[in-house]
Amino acid sequence: MTTVDRRPDPPESPSEAPSEAGRERRARELEEWLAAVPALARELVAQENAPAEAGDGDPVRLESRLELRLGADGLATPAVLARLRSALAATPSSSSWRFVNQLFGGREPAGMAAEMLAVVPNVSMYTFKAAGAQILVERELLRHMARHAGLADAEGCFTPGGSIANLVALLLARNVASPESRDRGLGGERLAIYTSAEGHYSIPKNAGILGLGRDSVRRVPTDDVGRMDVGALAQKLAEDRARGVRPALINATAGTTVRGAFDPIRALAALAREYGAWLHVDGALGGSVVLCPARRELIDGVELADTFTWNPHKMMGVPLQCSVLLVARRGELTRSLDETAEYLFQSHEDDVNPGHRSIQCGRRNDALKLWAAWLRLGDRGWDERIQRQFALARLAAAKIAADPALELIEPPPSINVCFAVRGRDSAALCDWLDREGRLKIGYGTVAGRRVLRLVCVNPDLEESDLDAILDEIRAAASAVPAGGD
Amino acid sequence: MTTVDRRPDPPESPSEAPSEAGRERRARELEEWLAAVPALARELVAQENAPAEAGDGDPVRLESRLELRLGADGLATPAVLARLRSALAATPSSSSWRFVNQLFGGREPAGMAAEMLAVVPNVSMYTFKAAGAQILVERELLRHMARHAGLADAEGCFTPGGSIANLVALLLARNVASPESRDRGLGGERLAIYTSAEGHYSIPKNAGILGLGRDSVRRVPTDDVGRMDVGALAQKLAEDRARGVRPALINATAGTTVRGAFDPIRALAALAREYGAWLHVDGALGGSVVLCPARRELIDGVELADTFTWNPHKMMGVPLQCSVLLVARRGELTRSLDETAEYLFQSHEDDVNPGHRSIQCGRRNDALKLWAAWLRLGDRGWDERIQRQFALARLAAAKIAADPALELIEPPPSINVCFAVRGRDSAALCDWLDREGRLKIGYGTVAGRRVLRLVCVNPDLEESDLDAILDEIRAAASAVPAGGD
Repeated sequence: MTTVDRRPDPPESPSEAPSEAGRERRARELEEWLAAVPALARELVAQENAPAEAGDGDPVRLESRLELRLGADGLATPAVLARLRSALAATPSSSSWRFVNQLFGGREPAGMAAEMLAVVPNVSMYTFKAAGAQILVERELLRHMARHAGLADAEGCFTPGGSIANLVALLLARNVASPESRDRGLGGERLAIYTSAEGHYSIPKNAGILGLGRDSVRRVPTDDVGRMDVGALAQKLAEDRARGVRPALINATAGTTVRGAFDPIRALAALAREYGAWLHVDGALGGSVVLCPARRELIDGVELADTFTWNPHKMMGVPLQCSVLLVARRGELTRSLDETAEYLFQSHEDDVNPGHRSIQCGRRNDALKLWAAWLRLGDRGWDERIQRQFALARLAAAKIAADPALELIEPPPSINVCFAVRGRDSAALCDWLDREGRLKIGYGTVAGRRVLRLVCVNPDLEESDLDAILDEIRAAASAVPAGGD
Repeated sequence: MTTVDRRPDPPESPSEAPSEAGRERRARELEEWLAAVPALARELVAQENAPAEAGDGDPVRLESRLELRLGADGLATPAVLARLRSALAATPSSSSWRFVNQLFGGREPAGMAAEMLAVVPNVSMYTFKAAGAQILVERELLRHMARHAGLADAEGCFTPGGSIANLVALLLARNVASPESRDRGLGGERLAIYTSAEGHYSIPKNAGILGLGRDSVRRVPTDDVGRMDVGALAQKLAEDRARGVRPALINATAGTTVRGAFDPIRALAALAREYGAWLHVDGALGGSVVLCPARRELIDGVELADTFTWNPHKMMGVPLQCSVLLVARRGELTRSLDETAEYLFQSHEDDVNPGHRSIQCGRRNDALKLWAAWLRLGDRGWDERIQRQFALARLAAAKIAADPALELIEPPPSINVCFAVRGRDSAALCDWLDREGRLKIGYGTVAGRRVLRLVCVNPDLEESDLDAILDEIRAAASAVPAGGD
């Protein structure tokens, strides 16, 4: 029986090529692509600080400009590469100084390279048998992160993002509050969840997913610097208990999405203990400050958490996604997530088969990039990186405060700087800057007022970049009509 | 104010370097890493077919051999690269002929390269503002995939794996069966879910997560070729209705995990309609056959599905993870997953802001790799690829049937070949082959019997590779003691 070569280049016959020719052609194609990667990567990096093409802010115009259509026939490699180049050139770079829009930005080169290399073996992180050394890399990271968090006995899992990490945390808490719910289903238990009015939207979303209902979430007011008001929390807890509702989980946000504020974890932990509630710390944004002794006080009390979400893809600059959930007591993840799967879990101790502790089945390798960046920087390098982010935020705030046309809303609690342009609507400014391809920046609401949010998460920004960002905003202010600020 | 360079190379002073020097050093480091990627990738590819190092099958020995520890001080780039190389060399490659263990394997070079390139802009796929052209790439894929599935009006989302795609499907079905559950929580509704005894473990796992309870899952017996028994399903549905239990979802598996069997979707769809149940098709493994006219009959009826899970990272050979959930009617995803998030969704139509339709918040780009591979192969290339996988399975089955020492359990329903070595325990064989570093292959249970499962998902295997695989298994049979087969 002759084997059939499955994917001939256009000029050749599609059938019955001998095996060795097939292997050679596949090797040649692999080499073509491997050579193309750094070349195109360099091009993209070289242009990433340029303004976007006019019109690319409009999806209809952009789609008509690009050749995105898929069809019946394949293309030769150079044609595919040309389309890839066009699509990537019309993609914002989160390492540009013009991208201060999201809670991630900048790149650690070691992390970037390791993420590219993880694609070569392309393993799934459920078992040691399937992923070998990568499982040990991941375990070392979990141990090291747990030590830094003061949760030395913790277990943990990598998750596809902070929302899913929070989902798993809430699941564990639900299953402790209602131990039969995993098997028998929820039966109208009266459980409540507490998070601040400025906490992440994934808390109510996840309550909806887990069958607890979004109405079970109590939004606790914040104080004037954006932290959960402990007195207001105590009152809500007492009210619920009086009504026969059981407090299941208190969510402490370590780095709120808009302002970057940190809830007072230790005070929340005391209330959690008093009410028998689970304490979750959502440090998706700010969890990394455990690596920064000078800022550690912000997250004081995290060592009392039952679960702790920490996204290295934010302040630590490794590629999306890299999120970790640490769980204070071993066994909780298995109890809520494990299933018998003989075809999958076939050898080795459970400790090196993290599929038992994951909400996923197949799971990509999100560990190698973080490990490589950590080797490169060491704990001290992370500390410096985070201090740099805080310093950039302070510097930006000082520049804003010094300009009478701008208004600093508050001294930045961490790395987000909230401010306004006097006499201009923040949303209108953001839209104009995006539409014109000048700057990606977002707005949020602080104390009922719509403000610009400058996220200083990219430590490679220089003072001159901050000046350029503020200049873009001033130029936008001249271009958009006056309006309520 | 002078800016501080944050990450000096060891010999240099850590403080107060001028900006331009900092930029230059960062550019130099980026270039070092970019140059290292293809070089190390080539090394890894060159060695991926070699047997594993003796002892690497033991996690304790492997950990003691590798330098995995993280610490306070950073390392210079060459030292990090050396450790990366060691860890990657001790990682199985899913493109090796020795890796026939999982439902993925092999690589499409265009997909691999595009995955590497997506790391450069490193965007999050929630909004057009943040991800630009990548959102349009993803939308084109969803449209094209929906057309192939016969679900022309579908919406969809990319998910981190098939388990999460199935989770979202079950969530949508739950929220249709119990419309108030998202806000008010589940209140002891009596809902039931039906899946075959050979369906994936994520179905009960997800029922546990969503508050329905694992006990709500009915495991329907299969026929002698591994498909759900339609008569048995009808009986369970009738029993449940008679007891006042509402059938919420019927899961049709398109490609079971062990045998690769396809449930009779059309018959299940008729019962779903009769009982008002949601029809989900779990095509994580076999969904790709919609691209293969010669095999399309296996998945006949998928166009009747309410939701359809399809993992291109399996039969289509793009890197982990690439999973899609298609949803027949627009609006369902938003209804179950959207939250107000003013700071995030600031511009453009919802259609190009897929964050409204995702279970995640931040979400990595899993689309570009599939788009690049699709451009390269075209629909026809996928068809050839899938035919090749089926042909390899038939060829392996013929070789097994021709060897009196081996026993073919059944003609392969699709690309998994289940067989046994006469007089040998399949688990013992798999363990020996893994421990000795010869072959990654798994076992499963078919009709109460433990069998070897050879997954023919890597189309780059040649006939000589199949011969080598079977030779490894014969060698293992000589090495392990006789035992129940």
